[in-house]
This record gives sequence, structure tokens and C-alpha cells, in this order.
Amino acid sequence: AVMKGVILSELPGARIIDLTHEVHVHWPAEAGFWLSHSYQYFPEGTVHIAVVDPGVGTSRDILGAECNGHFFLAPDNGLLPAVLDDQDDKKLHRLSSAWLASHIESEISSTFHGRDIFAPLGAGIASGKFLLGDIGPEIDDPVPSLIEPAEIVGKQLRGIVIAIDHFGNLITNIDAEQMQGFSAPVAQVASRQFPFKKTYGTVTPGNYLALINSFGVVEIARAEGSAADSLGLGWGAPVNIQESAD
Amino acid sequence: AVMKGVILSELPGARIIDLTHEVHVHWPAEAGFWLSHSYQYFPEGTVHIAVVDPGVGTSRDILGAECNGHFFLAPDNGLLPAVLDDQDDKKLHRLSSAWLASHIESEISSTFHGRDIFAPLGAGIASGKFLLGDIGPEIDDPVPSLIEPAEIVGKQLRGIVIAIDHFGNLITNIDAEQMQGFSAPVAQVASRQFPFKKTYGTVTPGNYLALINSFGVVEIARAEGSAADSLGLGWGAPVNIQESAD
Amino acid sequence: AVMKGVILSELPGARIIDLTHEVHVHWPAEAGFWLSHSYQYFPEGTVHIAVVDPGVGTSRDILGAECNGHFFLAPDNGLLPAVLDDQDDKKLHRLSSAWLASHIESEISSTFHGRDIFAPLGAGIASGKFLLGDIGPEIDDPVPSLIEPAEIVGKQLRGIVIAIDHFGNLITNIDAEQMQGFSAPVAQVASRQFPFKKTYGTVTPGNYLALINSFGVVEIARAEGSAADSLGLGWGAPVNIQESAD
Repeated sequence: AVMKGVILSELPGARIIDLTHEVHVHWPAEAGFWLSHSYQYFPEGTVHIAVVDPGVGTSRDILGAECNGHFFLAPDNGLLPAVLDDQDDKKLHRLSSAWLASHIESEISSTFHGRDIFAPLGAGIASGKFLLGDIGPEIDDPVPSLIEPAEIVGKQLRGIVIAIDHFGNLITNIDAEQMQGFSAPVAQVASRQFPFKKTYGTVTPGNYLALINSFGVVEIARAEGSAADSLGLGWGAPVNIQESAD
Repeated sequence: AVMKGVILSELPGARIIDLTHEVHVHWPAEAGFWLSHSYQYFPEGTVHIAVVDPGVGTSRDILGAECNGHFFLAPDNGLLPAVLDDQDDKKLHRLSSAWLASHIESEISSTFHGRDIFAPLGAGIASGKFLLGDIGPEIDDPVPSLIEPAEIVGKQLRGIVIAIDHFGNLITNIDAEQMQGFSAPVAQVASRQFPFKKTYGTVTPGNYLALINSFGVVEIARAEGSAADSLGLGWGAPVNIQESAD
Repeated sequence: AVMKGVILSELPGARIIDLTHEVHVHWPAEAGFWLSHSYQYFPEGTVHIAVVDPGVGTSRDILGAECNGHFFLAPDNGLLPAVLDDQDDKKLHRLSSAWLASHIESEISSTFHGRDIFAPLGAGIASGKFLLGDIGPEIDDPVPSLIEPAEIVGKQLRGIVIAIDHFGNLITNIDAEQMQGFSAPVAQVASRQFPFKKTYGTVTPGNYLALINSFGVVEIARAEGSAADSLGLGWGAPVNIQESAD
């Protein structure tokens, strides 16, 4: 909320939306997942500020990016590659301390860069006061994502749980396109196997299902329940796709 | 948040308020209660979008309504009758798949109609681009509420807990007007009886009370505590009003 | 959310920000802490409404204040002194029932003054329809804060945990300036002692640290964890600063 105050002080007409506060607070990978699958639903020109930042106040850098008409600000901690990898229309800059010292007036704390750097920087980019190209050198080597993409190992497609939503659905890093080689796939989670269905309402409440969700990735759900709670699984848990033995 | 992005993409000047995210996630009755007791505090012309939708992607219909100068969009799952029943100034339409196919451009997922249908439809109605009367046939037989109104049985007025607020207060479906026949009422919950008081601060912290709350319904509360947690009661729990035996 | 509806009905162009809903719900002291350390990041002229109000509907008064170009509305329960004490540029008024009866049209419930008084009053002050000086007599004796400032006792500086943030960090009422007499301070919490560090990322995940946080007060944190959960401490817990024995 204090970040919003700073933004409104700089840019009174700003429209500010919280993408989520429910991100696993110290896991940049989940923030990267939600951002990469959500930003395109916002208007072009939106500035997306992603402050999942366990390294705040250490020597980690801050990055600014432009991609497909959207702007992004984030720590250099593996969050942004989820947005930028595989995209052609992108530019990535590293914030320089010289630019920062000459353009941001407020005193900068060691623990709340969201308020002291990201908010005024984002407001300035949204208003056109700052240009992304001016904040520091263009780079092409951000800290990579700590999460490997899902991959084929033998007859299995192996991924992990990368996000858990408000309903307790387990969301994986397995893209729908990666599943095209399977004719009758099942999802293996812990020692259980779940069939693929079209949507939640097609199974009896309490039963599990796998599905391709609205973000185009594999999800493990429990109808009218929480798959995360009842399976006891969380971020990083392995999810494998394989042919049904039936 | 992604719904807000879609709405702002359609209608950049939209003012978007979250009524609540704390609704018991699979219970349309609670969403209907909050909506019916809250919408009148918003400006006329507001579009209220209620997506508590365990049947998303199945054959359940989508309804649009206009009532007392406000607009409502919701699944046809028993949520809207809480708003519309007993109202004279109302119109109810069922969204037709033909209208949908010709007016909503985005691909429609099976699991996130909030983003793919409700958000663009609501933005279009708010902006005047879409007219409620055009989205499909007028109907008068929505899926009814799954909750019966409170009713007199013998000497008791019998209702249930329909909502639990942020403080753990147990909010019932018993209207203040239904209590006019009682001279010294008490609320019976589980095997306990609680007297009616005017407000929380009139009892010692830790004690229970019944009251007519700010929405005009009976509520069971614990001063500076959570009645839901300490009584171990939840949605659907019976609450009976009767004369005090004293 | 209903408060926002009332505000937008009065003042359609209002920009409304939730400072926090995570305040310990019956503890005005925490609300006062957050407000006093946050308001200055919002634009001048902002109306800050603080409704942490266990005494709603009893005879407690309602206060309106102007301080350093910002407006404040709150119950007279010890919340506002955290903002106003030690400030020179301030005015404090007590809302009179006569003014209220003649200027607020809605029926006033006993349990939801946020919707029925604070929201229309705040919208009216923000729009210039109401002047703070008109709402009631100027006073200088609000209910004082229930929390004593941190103070020196012998060789210790003794404070308490006054707030707990989203990460589980324990935030105290000990100001950075109070620590200037210590050369090698440690924070004593429960029976443990924690050294002071510059920021979270400078200690191994799982380890504890004390730091001067971004609001200028002492904080006890656990790197990539929750100090509140793992130490089992909450609001009011004593935190003492003393010289290291090393």
C-alpha cells in the first residue's frame, strides 16, 4: 500500500492493480509464472512491478524490460526469464547506480526497495518521465530461472508444481503443447495417477482430476476441495505425465 | 487480477472494487448474501460481477440482470435469487451462446469464465457497448437459491449461518423484521443461548452476544474474539430464535 | 468494500487504497503504528480513514485531524496519538453529534460506523464539501495511546513488538534514534540474543537477525522464514536492546 502511495504521489492518474499477494513469498519462480501467464491480459503500456526479493539490500541488481508492448521491473533473481525467454520483441536493461543516484530523490532503505526504488521508477516509466533505455546498460545475461522446463525422460514428461492457486489447485510448469505426443495421458503425482478431464464440474466432488487449465498448463485439482491440502503437496513437487496403462 | 486487466483493456476508465475474496469458495449462497446486502451502497449503474462458480465449463448457464438501477452478472447456480427475489424493478436475461460467439473475441477456456466471459461482458455493459436486453432471452426461472429462508416452526424462528465475516462473526439468514413477534428473544446456537445486545462493546471481552447487525440480520458474535472459531461452527449451522425462559 | 461503494457514490473520482486489512483486528496500537509510518508516502491532501474500532456503537467519540497536510479520521481509542504526538503542524477535532445529525443522511447502525459515518465523512472532506473545522470542537486531549514508548531501564532499552508484517517479521516500537548510545547492540527476545545486520540477505536462510527496518524502527526477522511463527512471539512481546557481552 505504501508503494501505491508513492506511485500516486508521482502520477495521480495511475491505475494500480495487485496481481497477487499470495505468491509463495520467497520463491521468485512462482511470481515469474504468474507474471508470464497474466501480463498479456493487461493493456499495452502497463508497467508490471514484481517485487519478490529475498535479496533486497544485497548486491543483486535490478532489471527493467520491455516485451510485447509491456514494461517490467524486477530484481535480477531469476524472475524475469519466465516472461522473456522465447520472446522475440524484448529489451532488457540493468539499472545503474549512477542513474539511480541522479534520478531518485528519496533516501533508499536496505529493506524496502519496493517503496524506495521500484515505485518511483515504475511511476516515472508509466508517465513517460523516465525512458527504459536510459536507466542503465542493455544486457542479455539476466540471472536465469532456477526452475528447469518440463522435459521428456524416457516415456515420461517430467515437471513440477510451480504455483498453487487460491483453491489449492496444483499448477505445473508442463505446457499443453508438450503433451501432444501422448494419446491417453495420465498425471502421476506422489504414488497416485489422475486422468485428464475437461473441467472441475465433470467429476464428483471430492475426486481428483488433471486438466489443461485456463493458462494452458497442466493442473492437478480436487473438485470442490484443495488438492494441495489433501495430497499434502507443495511447490516443487514432481508431476509426471505418461501413457495410461489401461 | 487478470479479470481487472481484461476490464481495463476494454474500458480504461473503469473503477474496480473487490467486494470480497473471502467468500466460502464453493458456496454461492454466501456470495448471494453479501451481494444482496451490499450492492445498494454502490453508485447506480454499477456492474456487479459474481463469479462463485463450481460449475464453470459445464452446461450451467450465465445470467445477466438489472435491478434497482444496478447490473449483475453471475452463473445460474442459485446466487442471483438472493438479490432478485422480492424485488419489483428487475429484468433477468440468460446469456445465449449465439450472442457470445458473435460478440466476445477471446478464446474461451473451460475453467476461467471470469476472465474470458464475465470480464469483457461486464466491461461492455458498463461502457454501454453491450445492452443487457441483447445478450439473450428474458427469463423468469433462474436456478433457485439452495437456502430456504428462515421460518417459524412452533415457537421457534429457525435459520442458519449463511456467512462468516473477517472477525469470525456468524451471520444468519434471519431478518430483523422476522423477529417482531418476540418480546424477549434469545438466540440458540449449538446447545447454548445468547441474549440480544445492541453492539459488541456492551459485553465483556470474551463473552458472546446476539445482535441485529449493520445489514439488518441476526448475528452471533464474541466480543474481541471469533465466535466461529470458539464455538466451532460454520456455514449452514442452525440458529434458532425463541423467547427467553426467564 | 461497502465503504468504498459509499465513497464512490459521494465522490466518483475518488482513488481508494487499502493500507492494510492485516492489522491485529482489535488492537488500535498496531493500526496507529502503520498509519504513523505510512501516511507521509501518500499525496498531500489524502484522507486516511482508520477503522480499528472495538468500541463501535458505544459512547466512544470520533476524531478528525489535520497534520502535515494530511487528513485523518479515527475512533477516539488511542490510535491517532501515534500519528499526532510530537508533531507541530496539527489540528484535532471531535465529531459532534449535532453536526453528524444535520450532515449525514444515512441511517447509522450500531456496528458499522465505517460504512455509515467514516465513509461519507471522509468523502466529504476529500471533496471539500465538509471542512474539518466544522465537524465539532477543537480538542487537545484525545484518548492516549495504550502503548508506552520504548525507554531506557538501567543498561537496557526496553520496547515491545507493536506490529507483525506479512512475512512474520516482528516490528518493535524502538526507534533507530534511541539506539545511538549503544556501540555494539544486540536484541534480546525471549531468552535469545540476536545481532544487528544491515538486511535479510546477509544471513544464512533460517538464521535470525535484528535490523533497523525501512520504517526506521528495530525489527526481529528470520531470513526466508517467519520470526513470529518460529519464536512463537506476538504483539506486546518484550524486546530489549543492550550491549553485546562479547
